Amino acid sequence: MIVYYISMRPKDENKQDAIIKATVKLVNDIGFVASSVSKIAREADVSPATIYIYYKNKEDLLVSTYIDIKHKISDAIMRDFDSDLPIRDILKKLWFNAFDYIARHPGYFKFTEQFSYSPYSALVNKKKVEKYFEPMMDILRKGIEQKIIKDISFEILTVFMFYPVTLLANPRICATFELNRENVETAFTLAWDAIKL
Amino acid sequence: MIVYYISMRPKDENKQDAIIKATVKLVNDIGFVASSVSKIAREADVSPATIYIYYKNKEDLLVSTYIDIKHKISDAIMRDFDSDLPIRDILKKLWFNAFDYIARHPGYFKFTEQFSYSPYSALVNKKKVEKYFEPMMDILRKGIEQKIIKDISFEILTVFMFYPVTLLANPRICATFELNRENVETAFTLAWDAIKL
Repeated sequence: MIVYYISMRPKDENKQDAIIKATVKLVNDIGFVASSVSKIAREADVSPATIYIYYKNKEDLLVSTYIDIKHKISDAIMRDFDSDLPIRDILKKLWFNAFDYIARHPGYFKFTEQFSYSPYSALVNKKKVEKYFEPMMDILRKGIEQKIIKDISFEILTVFMFYPVTLLANPRICATFELNRENVETAFTLAWDAIKL
Repeated sequence: MIVYYISMRPKDENKQDAIIKATVKLVNDIGFVASSVSKIAREADVSPATIYIYYKNKEDLLVSTYIDIKHKISDAIMRDFDSDLPIRDILKKLWFNAFDYIARHPGYFKFTEQFSYSPYSALVNKKKVEKYFEPMMDILRKGIEQKIIKDISFEILTVFMFYPVTLLANPRICATFELNRENVETAFTLAWDAIKL
């Protein structure tokens, strides 16, 4: 039985991954309202019944997809994290990781942006998502303790240190901003100047 | 004929104002999809035919309402503008004006935020809206010329100088940020530190 279970596992994960990819594609193409479970199933090349194995309903599918992507993004941002580096270098690394992830996964990024402004965002367990980004808050906390970063609320620090990434990477907001190394570094300088003591 | 036209004018403007207010209320309450012209007419206490005097269709009504509010916001931000003040003081005044407007018109602000992330935003004449905010760009331009503000793209400067207002005032993004004088001033310090040379 165990062997059977293990050998089946990759297939299931592939299916779930296909469902998430199909959800993102369909929502980005035709919007939340028009994206039905049956259309998502067709796009993912699975039966609607398969989707209901993993998700209770359309809402659950959309919310779970959002949380899953947020988890992926936080993992990508924390890639090659080295707590021994100076605070500024750590944050710069996170900043570049974030832009790199968005550049490689524009569809995922677009989905999360749309989702945040949809009524579905009220259904997200915010504490769960915040937990993924806790390591970033720890860096800010350390910076405040070391009197390198301004001792103010995390909300204000986040608005200047992390949100600019999502604004700059959003072509609807910054139509002409090119995601090249020089521009990303320039923008980081402003973020750092904002929060540093 | 002219007298008749003038005497009728205020009544028409009241009606148009009622339609805009009803559009904002309904979209904020039940969303873009469910907000039909007939429901908006009922909320505004006018007949649907009256709405079609001013607007071609639902899309036109939504887009015009957005543009109208953006115009109101830009006017409010530029209130008591004094070009003789130092650049930092001018920007600080705009910053407080913006928070003040949002605090007094949370419904209008919520509508514009939702609208920006809706498919309708693609229908907006962006050049027209940008024109309303041109005076703010002139201040940044002057600051760059005087070597007070970093000589980088307006898009990056805007992300750090103006967008933080909309993020901080959005309870969905900053749930615990209180729009009091002290917090708004603290946040302004970060915006200024970001863009100053």
